[in-house]
Amino acid sequence: MKKLKFSPLFWPVRKRGGQIYVLDETLLPGRLKYLKVKNYRDSCRLIKNMKTRAVGQVLLVLYTFIMVFDKNRDKKNLAEILNKAATALGNSRPTLSFKYLTAMVMGWFKEGGELDKKIYAFLDVLRNARIEQAKKASRLLRNKDVILTHCNVSGLLPLVGELCRRAKKNISFFTTETRPYLQGSRLTAWELQRAGFKVTIISDNMVAQVMKEGKIDKVIVGADNLARNGDIANKIGTYQIALLAKHFNIPFYVLCPPPSSAKTGKDIKIEVRPDAELLKFGTTPIAPSGVRGYYPAFDITPAGLISGHIYLGV
Amino acid sequence: MKKLKFSPLFWPVRKRGGQIYVLDETLLPGRLKYLKVKNYRDSCRLIKNMKTRAVGQVLLVLYTFIMVFDKNRDKKNLAEILNKAATALGNSRPTLSFKYLTAMVMGWFKEGGELDKKIYAFLDVLRNARIEQAKKASRLLRNKDVILTHCNVSGLLPLVGELCRRAKKNISFFTTETRPYLQGSRLTAWELQRAGFKVTIISDNMVAQVMKEGKIDKVIVGADNLARNGDIANKIGTYQIALLAKHFNIPFYVLCPPPSSAKTGKDIKIEVRPDAELLKFGTTPIAPSGVRGYYPAFDITPAGLISGHIYLGV
Repeated sequence: MKKLKFSPLFWPVRKRGGQIYVLDETLLPGRLKYLKVKNYRDSCRLIKNMKTRAVGQVLLVLYTFIMVFDKNRDKKNLAEILNKAATALGNSRPTLSFKYLTAMVMGWFKEGGELDKKIYAFLDVLRNARIEQAKKASRLLRNKDVILTHCNVSGLLPLVGELCRRAKKNISFFTTETRPYLQGSRLTAWELQRAGFKVTIISDNMVAQVMKEGKIDKVIVGADNLARNGDIANKIGTYQIALLAKHFNIPFYVLCPPPSSAKTGKDIKIEVRPDAELLKFGTTPIAPSGVRGYYPAFDITPAGLISGHIYLGV
Repeated sequence: MKKLKFSPLFWPVRKRGGQIYVLDETLLPGRLKYLKVKNYRDSCRLIKNMKTRAVGQVLLVLYTFIMVFDKNRDKKNLAEILNKAATALGNSRPTLSFKYLTAMVMGWFKEGGELDKKIYAFLDVLRNARIEQAKKASRLLRNKDVILTHCNVSGLLPLVGELCRRAKKNISFFTTETRPYLQGSRLTAWELQRAGFKVTIISDNMVAQVMKEGKIDKVIVGADNLARNGDIANKIGTYQIALLAKHFNIPFYVLCPPPSSAKTGKDIKIEVRPDAELLKFGTTPIAPSGVRGYYPAFDITPAGLISGHIYLGV
């Protein structure tokens, strides 16, 4: 089989030599630039500034541990150094905890042995699990299907499209622009276009209309959090797309992360972000001064609205 | 009764002396500026450039006839001059015909008598009909109601709020930002705030979430076109708000224009506008170059989703 091609967003963090390179997602689609990371403080800063997001943040945390371990493997106070890094990384984003990741890595360290090899092995498993997930998604699709998506699923959709292509199924895409951060137009449209797929951008208020016009065969979105009962949390707007898909009898699929500790969607706290992010475009105000906005960054889609969960792994 | 206060958007066109003054809606909310109109060519240009919209365009057409009549009332070729202006105004926006208006005015002219007085009388009727419409809307609302709106209803909502205030009912508002032209944040939030009402901006993908959180008591929107069967055409996004309101059992009201000749919504052609308007913010591209967008500017909300039509007039 010909080697699969991947979107830069599928694996947006690399390690070469003693340095980590992180795709700066805030510059897309204008520039494809990688930021150098030399120490764990750099990593925390990039996470705080949201230079990388979703799977990129997970990768950055893991590669950072490899880097810190590698640079300090012969030092007496290695445990202390790793602990310091773990604490800083765990606290780098108040609303999105990496503590489960840092705890996992520190557990491996305590078991003894070569930490870097264990992390590399885990990264391999993760990479393959994501490829298997894309394969499962591709098997749900038929020739000429038009997929509506929302926000960005970190490189999975171009891979799904590529796998469909190999199975002689041509699919195309609509993406919402995904206000306010525009991940749909900036990231999803960009990665789909460069992989050679037809993609059409709509604003978030056009979903019902394109569904009514019969333009959409299936919806596929990602998820930031999967509760034990199948409810998901994902980028704001996902819930109303799911409600509209139900109304128009359009299948609604979710590419899921591993389940979290939340029993149901009610256990997932919704992050309310500063309204300034909604009321400005870059630095240009788009609302009258003094008017407030409300910006819940995520919403919960109940399991009952989900036609199929596409899980990580085989 | 204390004199009612009006939003500048309620009656955005004035005539003083031989000139017409038109509120430049494209500069809001940053600047409140009126553009001078000296002849019917100026009027056509402002309509084409969308410096004024909705009720403003209707007013501009009517005041332009008064101006042209006034300047040429003693000329022999008055009929010819008026006809020329009527044709130019009627064709000024391909997708939104003013021909019914120009035909009405030319009909009055043919009847003889003073055209300007007839138009002024019509404008008086229109003004009062809009005030009565706002009164009807205010009677549907209860103290502490929170109203969600979309796009901009040309000054009617601040008036509805003012009438509620006089009836000791305090209401407040949520508005979608209304992509891509942002009429919700630029116009609606602006006119509601300056009239002293609490207004909160959300992006178009947050509607289901704020409804689910119980933040919305009623939806009130305007309409660009009312079909004979009660279907409406309005700014893209209205239809999905109506579907979501239905799902959450939230009343959905429409401030209606006079009915058009369309029998049902199916007879109303939906204007598809250039995707460039969706893919740029001002002059900044927000999508990768080469990617296409799809921009239906309006959608149809079927009468069955409308809890109440609020008609013009008593």
